[in-house]
Amino acid sequence: MATVLILGAGAMGSAFCFPAADSGHKVNLVGTHLDQEMIGQLKKNGEHPVLKTKLPENVQAFQYEELETALRDRPDVVVLGVSSAGIDWAVKTLGPRLKEPVPVLLLTKGLAVGEDRLTILPRVVADGLSGFGTGRFTVGAVGGPCIAGELAARRDTRVTFAYPDSEKFGWLGNLFKAPYYHIHYSTDLTGVEICAAMKNFFALAVGYPPGRLEVSDRPQNGAKMHNLSAGLFAQSVREMALLVEWMEGNAENVYGLAGVGDLYVTCQAGRNSKMGRFLGMGMTYTAAKQEKMPFDTVEGAELALKIGPFLEGLFETGTLDREKYPLTRTIIDAVCHDALMDIPWISF
Amino acid sequence: MATVLILGAGAMGSAFCFPAADSGHKVNLVGTHLDQEMIGQLKKNGEHPVLKTKLPENVQAFQYEELETALRDRPDVVVLGVSSAGIDWAVKTLGPRLKEPVPVLLLTKGLAVGEDRLTILPRVVADGLSGFGTGRFTVGAVGGPCIAGELAARRDTRVTFAYPDSEKFGWLGNLFKAPYYHIHYSTDLTGVEICAAMKNFFALAVGYPPGRLEVSDRPQNGAKMHNLSAGLFAQSVREMALLVEWMEGNAENVYGLAGVGDLYVTCQAGRNSKMGRFLGMGMTYTAAKQEKMPFDTVEGAELALKIGPFLEGLFETGTLDREKYPLTRTIIDAVCHDALMDIPWISF
Repeated sequence: MATVLILGAGAMGSAFCFPAADSGHKVNLVGTHLDQEMIGQLKKNGEHPVLKTKLPENVQAFQYEELETALRDRPDVVVLGVSSAGIDWAVKTLGPRLKEPVPVLLLTKGLAVGEDRLTILPRVVADGLSGFGTGRFTVGAVGGPCIAGELAARRDTRVTFAYPDSEKFGWLGNLFKAPYYHIHYSTDLTGVEICAAMKNFFALAVGYPPGRLEVSDRPQNGAKMHNLSAGLFAQSVREMALLVEWMEGNAENVYGLAGVGDLYVTCQAGRNSKMGRFLGMGMTYTAAKQEKMPFDTVEGAELALKIGPFLEGLFETGTLDREKYPLTRTIIDAVCHDALMDIPWISF
Repeated sequence: MATVLILGAGAMGSAFCFPAADSGHKVNLVGTHLDQEMIGQLKKNGEHPVLKTKLPENVQAFQYEELETALRDRPDVVVLGVSSAGIDWAVKTLGPRLKEPVPVLLLTKGLAVGEDRLTILPRVVADGLSGFGTGRFTVGAVGGPCIAGELAARRDTRVTFAYPDSEKFGWLGNLFKAPYYHIHYSTDLTGVEICAAMKNFFALAVGYPPGRLEVSDRPQNGAKMHNLSAGLFAQSVREMALLVEWMEGNAENVYGLAGVGDLYVTCQAGRNSKMGRFLGMGMTYTAAKQEKMPFDTVEGAELALKIGPFLEGLFETGTLDREKYPLTRTIIDAVCHDALMDIPWISF
């Protein structure tokens, strides 16, 4: 039996309790200051209000003020399930409190923009934690198609654990080998993490046709726009692969669970597709956000706002070949500049 | 203006009339003996009973007895839209009547089983037509996500024209350059054609989770099985790529429109997904076919019945590594041997 500390009690962090606890480990789930209500509820009756299900018995919930207590069990692995905006906070909070480097697994998806490059979050966390002088931390991440509510219902789920240290794979895999949690491995953190972040971004485009359908003339035969969705899905995969290769990741992950698998599941439902639908209906991003989804975090759009200006800079200097990223540019134009979304067929 | 002869007046052959006619060509649509009613209806009022829409004005419909008349216009290109079972008939019918080799484009999807290999249909047609002694025929094919009813409604559709003669690409592209029909090119016929055929086969598996969901316990939080569908989608892409590479095609097409694009659209609806659902509900293939879909052609299952025994032979001799095709084997077991479908997680 190991001890697993999970920081972040939102949907994904809490859902990860299931394979961890079902594998027989002691699981300490620590909320952030945003999770107070959730942790309160969990302490009361063990039920997670977002996952709408009880967590396993061997999960103990902690408020963030109780982090020190939760750490007293000396976790064998730390799992980060905070939002991408909470990454820096997590590093600052954990760094001084971890007495020695433990393996860290990141559930958080996102990319950080440095001065001249994009950085994947596991690298940000590894550098951050290692800066506290207790040794070098190894940080991995989980990719692949995983809707939290399904994992919490113990539905079969295939994921990719990306971890830079391949000798730890067997150990990591054994830690979380619940019968419904099917783990594959990769050392290619870059490939897996770019997919994990960018699938939300591209889901905005694959979500566009249903919206456009709503405002288009109805043809006599009731035809929908699945051809268009599929055409945009394929273009998304292509541009994702180009970006991964440019960042020296392995495109194999784009063609596997982390890429096509996760993009597939993301396009079946969710907030990014919903925002895509409003763009397809001819709304600007700003109007759609304000009028239709004011309280939702649309991760793909947040990412576009974050990395859009940076990518535009690369297109301008020719560092990235703009001709190869027509869909990426269309999404950035829509989200960052409120351009009405229109598909650049001629550039595909 | 060119003359385009389309043989086969089913959904796909007839839908292809749209980009052909909208590009300003004379289009002669010739039915097979199975299309008599359809052609009769078209002659009466121009409306296609399956596509539920009128064909463009510059399409002329012919019964198969009128093929000679339709050929008198000396077509610049012949398009085959017959069923895969009708390919031999089409070759025998056209071969003696074509006075010289014309470019041929195949809409028909399928694979032929030779003594020791799988053969793509364009090769079967090219060899067949060339056997009539008028010269060597060049035969291409159309891949990519294209629901016929959507094309007939002039919905944006991206396709891949696979044609072995890259010098003809510009000419072919210009022939069918309707504003809603976005043509990409590849010389890799093998890759495109294996995708076109196998996407139906793998859609049986991606369709399985919704059926399994129906017969599973309902979890408290109402979780569905999208993670499972996406995991099977990714595995399908992987095994499709392996098969393409084994047949010396280019896996790039698997990761593009012909592969992930067409698989995506096929998994959104259709008869293969429907059959997958019944398999997911725990029915055998035979029972599902007889009780639920007795009058439907389930293309993926037809293909499994056709190539299943051949692939099993390759697995047995080790010509194909059976360990690398767990999902392929699962589908073959279900369709060819009435095994209850179960996902071989451990082998993925």
